[in-house]
Amino acid sequence: MIRRLCIIGVGLIGGSLARALRNAGVCEEIVGSGRSVGNLEKAMELGVIDRFDTDPAIAAAGADMIVVAVPLGAMEAVFRAIQPVLGTESVLTDAGSAKGCVVDAARAVFGEVPAFLVPGHPIAGTERSGVGASFPELYQGRRVILTPLPETDLRALDRVTLMWQAAGARVSNMEVTHHDAVLAATSHLPHVLAFSLVDTLSRLEEHDEILEYAAGGFRDFSRIASSDPVMWRDICIANRDAILKMIDRYMAGLNEFTGMLREQDEERILETFRRAKEVRDGFVGH
Amino acid sequence: MIRRLCIIGVGLIGGSLARALRNAGVCEEIVGSGRSVGNLEKAMELGVIDRFDTDPAIAAAGADMIVVAVPLGAMEAVFRAIQPVLGTESVLTDAGSAKGCVVDAARAVFGEVPAFLVPGHPIAGTERSGVGASFPELYQGRRVILTPLPETDLRALDRVTLMWQAAGARVSNMEVTHHDAVLAATSHLPHVLAFSLVDTLSRLEEHDEILEYAAGGFRDFSRIASSDPVMWRDICIANRDAILKMIDRYMAGLNEFTGMLREQDEERILETFRRAKEVRDGFVGH
Repeated sequence: MIRRLCIIGVGLIGGSLARALRNAGVCEEIVGSGRSVGNLEKAMELGVIDRFDTDPAIAAAGADMIVVAVPLGAMEAVFRAIQPVLGTESVLTDAGSAKGCVVDAARAVFGEVPAFLVPGHPIAGTERSGVGASFPELYQGRRVILTPLPETDLRALDRVTLMWQAAGARVSNMEVTHHDAVLAATSHLPHVLAFSLVDTLSRLEEHDEILEYAAGGFRDFSRIASSDPVMWRDICIANRDAILKMIDRYMAGLNEFTGMLREQDEERILETFRRAKEVRDGFVGH
Repeated sequence: MIRRLCIIGVGLIGGSLARALRNAGVCEEIVGSGRSVGNLEKAMELGVIDRFDTDPAIAAAGADMIVVAVPLGAMEAVFRAIQPVLGTESVLTDAGSAKGCVVDAARAVFGEVPAFLVPGHPIAGTERSGVGASFPELYQGRRVILTPLPETDLRALDRVTLMWQAAGARVSNMEVTHHDAVLAATSHLPHVLAFSLVDTLSRLEEHDEILEYAAGGFRDFSRIASSDPVMWRDICIANRDAILKMIDRYMAGLNEFTGMLREQDEERILETFRRAKEVRDGFVGH
């Protein structure tokens, strides 16, 4: 049971968590914080939060669970702002898509990784953003990865685990750098490729006509290019090395394919497509 | 009104067209042909076709509308097989995703592009294949591009236009090479990128874990990698030059992005993402 939940960043991720926990009846009070008063007022109207303060320190004071769901680039500033009000009972967690940079931000602010910090990452989301896009079922059956450190208090880990499970998620643990490598491959790379595809097409001369004739394949492929640009800029910067490594691997693969196509090597092209289809068909089964 | 419609290749594309035209009540009889007896028997069971013959010449004899919906690599062989039975009333069209190669195949078989041939391309489909995946609404509101040549009989063009409109599609005309350039950008490139992404990930050491943690972004992005490998091999070979050109453009864009990321140029990364989001959001409105 959470007595007072403080959500800093009441958008799609933070707002959906608040809604899920309220529906599950595991929160007595939910306090929101964020930079946009309009968004926080909307969160009040929608019943997502009970009250708010744009100052994260005031919002977090007295909270026994603080979830920071802001773009990665804003993480350190939030940690710095709430540091003075963190009590002995406070558990602090975040929802950032990369974890190494969150640990670095904590070290910069607290001098070490505090025992009450449990870095976390819900593998969920849509391309939409803001509290208006939030919904309580977002985490139902989805994975949440927590990346505790040797310093992490196991009771804090346990409380964050129970919170996400109450929201419907399946929680697992992973080492920080391993998380960042896996996510660079499964999430960050696809986003970069999608942004890059839309950007490439939009710079072609006939771009209006091209979008006119784009079919379902393009629609699905490029959906994630509608994601929040600030959030994704921050992810790219935060997980830069792992992402650059994945882009290199991808480019090597695409170069290999280009070679096959140039040589009209029908057999190897077919083999590549068959292998990809098999893997992708297997994924659907999850 | 079509007296006898012959569909050669009763899969997702051909089967859905047959179903749509039957529902619209514009066909007296529908004859199917294809290589797989199992698929044709299934098409009979589902009521998609009235009868079939695995020999395309027998199936096409006496038909006033012949639609060839086979992978591009099989197009020339089908043209050659049906050539002897084409009558003065026959209209011939296809559903291939590239058009230059269809015109080439026709020239190879008929010595010239016959006036009764109307090359066509329905911009519709799913990643599934076979008659079992077909459904009558597939073309509802979707675009069909016809690429008539100077040689094309306008009455033949008109009959094919009316057929697709009866299936619910919006029909427009385009020049052959222009079609192939536009489709390389909007459809062929995204498919190559998706196949390539899945292939890259599946060759990483931790590939099982990576697919385990893949989220919605990956799911949507890679959906088209489940498409029919033979069909896509043929498209790549058939529209090779235009696709290679688009891959080059894409690689240049991705390289540019990699440079920004390497230099941590947050401003330009944000600008790129913002531009892509704006374009993609505009596309949703279509």
